[in-house]
Amino acid sequence: MVPVTAAHATLETPLGVVASQPASLAATPDALTALHALVKDDLEACNRTIVARMASPVALIPRLAAHIVAAGGKRLRPLLTLASARLCGYPTAAAGQRHVSLAACVEFIHTATLLHDDVVDESVLRRGLASANAVFGNQASVLVGDFLFARAFELMVEDGSLKVLGILSRAAATIAEGEVLQLVTQNDLTTSEPRYFEVIRGKTAALFEAACQVGAVVAEQPEPHEAALATFGLNLGIAFQLVDDALDYAADQAILGKTVGDDFREGKITLPVLLAYQDSAPVERAFWHRTIESGDQTEADLTEAMRLIAERRAIDHTLDRAASFATAAKAALEAFPDSAFRRALRDVTDYTVLRAR
Amino acid sequence: MVPVTAAHATLETPLGVVASQPASLAATPDALTALHALVKDDLEACNRTIVARMASPVALIPRLAAHIVAAGGKRLRPLLTLASARLCGYPTAAAGQRHVSLAACVEFIHTATLLHDDVVDESVLRRGLASANAVFGNQASVLVGDFLFARAFELMVEDGSLKVLGILSRAAATIAEGEVLQLVTQNDLTTSEPRYFEVIRGKTAALFEAACQVGAVVAEQPEPHEAALATFGLNLGIAFQLVDDALDYAADQAILGKTVGDDFREGKITLPVLLAYQDSAPVERAFWHRTIESGDQTEADLTEAMRLIAERRAIDHTLDRAASFATAAKAALEAFPDSAFRRALRDVTDYTVLRAR
Repeated sequence: MVPVTAAHATLETPLGVVASQPASLAATPDALTALHALVKDDLEACNRTIVARMASPVALIPRLAAHIVAAGGKRLRPLLTLASARLCGYPTAAAGQRHVSLAACVEFIHTATLLHDDVVDESVLRRGLASANAVFGNQASVLVGDFLFARAFELMVEDGSLKVLGILSRAAATIAEGEVLQLVTQNDLTTSEPRYFEVIRGKTAALFEAACQVGAVVAEQPEPHEAALATFGLNLGIAFQLVDDALDYAADQAILGKTVGDDFREGKITLPVLLAYQDSAPVERAFWHRTIESGDQTEADLTEAMRLIAERRAIDHTLDRAASFATAAKAALEAFPDSAFRRALRDVTDYTVLRAR
Repeated sequence: MVPVTAAHATLETPLGVVASQPASLAATPDALTALHALVKDDLEACNRTIVARMASPVALIPRLAAHIVAAGGKRLRPLLTLASARLCGYPTAAAGQRHVSLAACVEFIHTATLLHDDVVDESVLRRGLASANAVFGNQASVLVGDFLFARAFELMVEDGSLKVLGILSRAAATIAEGEVLQLVTQNDLTTSEPRYFEVIRGKTAALFEAACQVGAVVAEQPEPHEAALATFGLNLGIAFQLVDDALDYAADQAILGKTVGDDFREGKITLPVLLAYQDSAPVERAFWHRTIESGDQTEADLTEAMRLIAERRAIDHTLDRAASFATAAKAALEAFPDSAFRRALRDVTDYTVLRAR
């Protein structure tokens, strides 16, 4: 069900056909706003579905779910499902259309993984607000995550497509594998770049891929179009995570909506660290071993880590990689004729990278 | 998809037609062994499926999963799927038959909830061995639970029945609701009996119900037979959990395979506590408030709790309730003609209650 290019390519380089695609001038934060506007009715219907379907006689469930689902977030993944369907000519939402409820499934799966991630990472902030586990406790976060995951599958069953169920259940398993692999590589500076790319492909890009592919499936597109959207989503997801990993050592907390240095404090192995560590001098190696592997850190160490990463231009190199995945993502969109949806997806892809420059 | 009797009945009393069903003389621990023997080939095929399908390139996943899945356990839930299918005339397992892979799904869902339960309860023992979270950490337990849950859905998609997917996705959501409700009622002695029954119906009986119903579905039984097996499973599941809750204040740790007094230490509201608390004297009320509600406990308090529970015959009363649910479970089996499978399911139902007497 997934394109050979996407499933079997080496992951350190972008997937699919790569053509030169200069970043559009429209790549401002407005790109996301523009995409929102373009699928406004669909997105509002999706938000209504989300609120309606997180209902439960157990009051804590919608209360906790609302804290994270309804608190906003960019809704990037459901937007991808909606826009992909529309790019493929699927009509705009009457109540209860397939792309709307499947976009809600995608958001439920994403939210479930966020809840479990925050428990695993012991996070206290999420999108700049107190994380659900900080407010409601780890126990409730684990169980409400399970509920949202199960509810996503109930929605898919109502949709009635075994093909969609196959795509999203495989994505869910791949996400979990990516998360476990991330846990295993934590604090381990011998982690290879390909391993790092396996982690981000699993934990992030698999759902982007599935979200886009599902849009093509509901629009009953031929296989090459379905594959093109899967390739678009996969490359975009990898670019997105590379930028996220770069921002963790670079961004202003207010912009990022999360604590800078989270990855550092957790000893997560991300590309900026791997690039700074490669071929470094013994004294730098000792620094990374102490801080990342042994987890022996003082407050000043984050500043030093950011200095070393800047000195080696590891942020720039990470963003360059992100840009090449973004280029591959945009190239995949060439399978479709020009339209407002294609332009909006291209602009969002550019924005994904340029938000960090 | 679920019988009206099961879905809408009040849960403090058994569901479905209740006839007088004296416990069989065969109700020894051998009842489970006998059921195992009866579906031996199917169960072995199911175990092979379980081992094959917990495989992942991420080595920690099968390692942790094996700790809990392959370490044994009674395999009660997959046994119910296998025996229900065979009771309905479904043929014995060739490799890859539907009831075998769906029994594996049921076990994966059960295992995922066990992993998450142990994180939520901070358990250190499971089936008399160190729990997965104690050995591998909470983080890995949460994520591998997610993987097994997703894998269960992948298996269901391969099976290809939307009806089965509907039954098991609904069960999964109901389990999560039951678990959250249990968390909400923890430490709360104002919890009503109906609320307690909602908890155990969700956290335990929903999967028993689905496991049995799925057996009828693969055997393409008419609706009344499917409903009868769902009712059987639901009542058996409630009986099973009532006995489990009784044993937590009564059993020898070696028999139970878990630490006696876990529920007490966690401030869980179970029927033995509710019965002992009802109409108790002020000094006893103060004891329960301190230990269960405030969680202020000393080592001697468990002994005192067990004494108070024994004095009020709360274990006996809990087991009496379990017996009446077991009777209702057996009555539901009357929809089927006599067979070795029906006898084995009846005996296992008796054993479920009698193991505690």
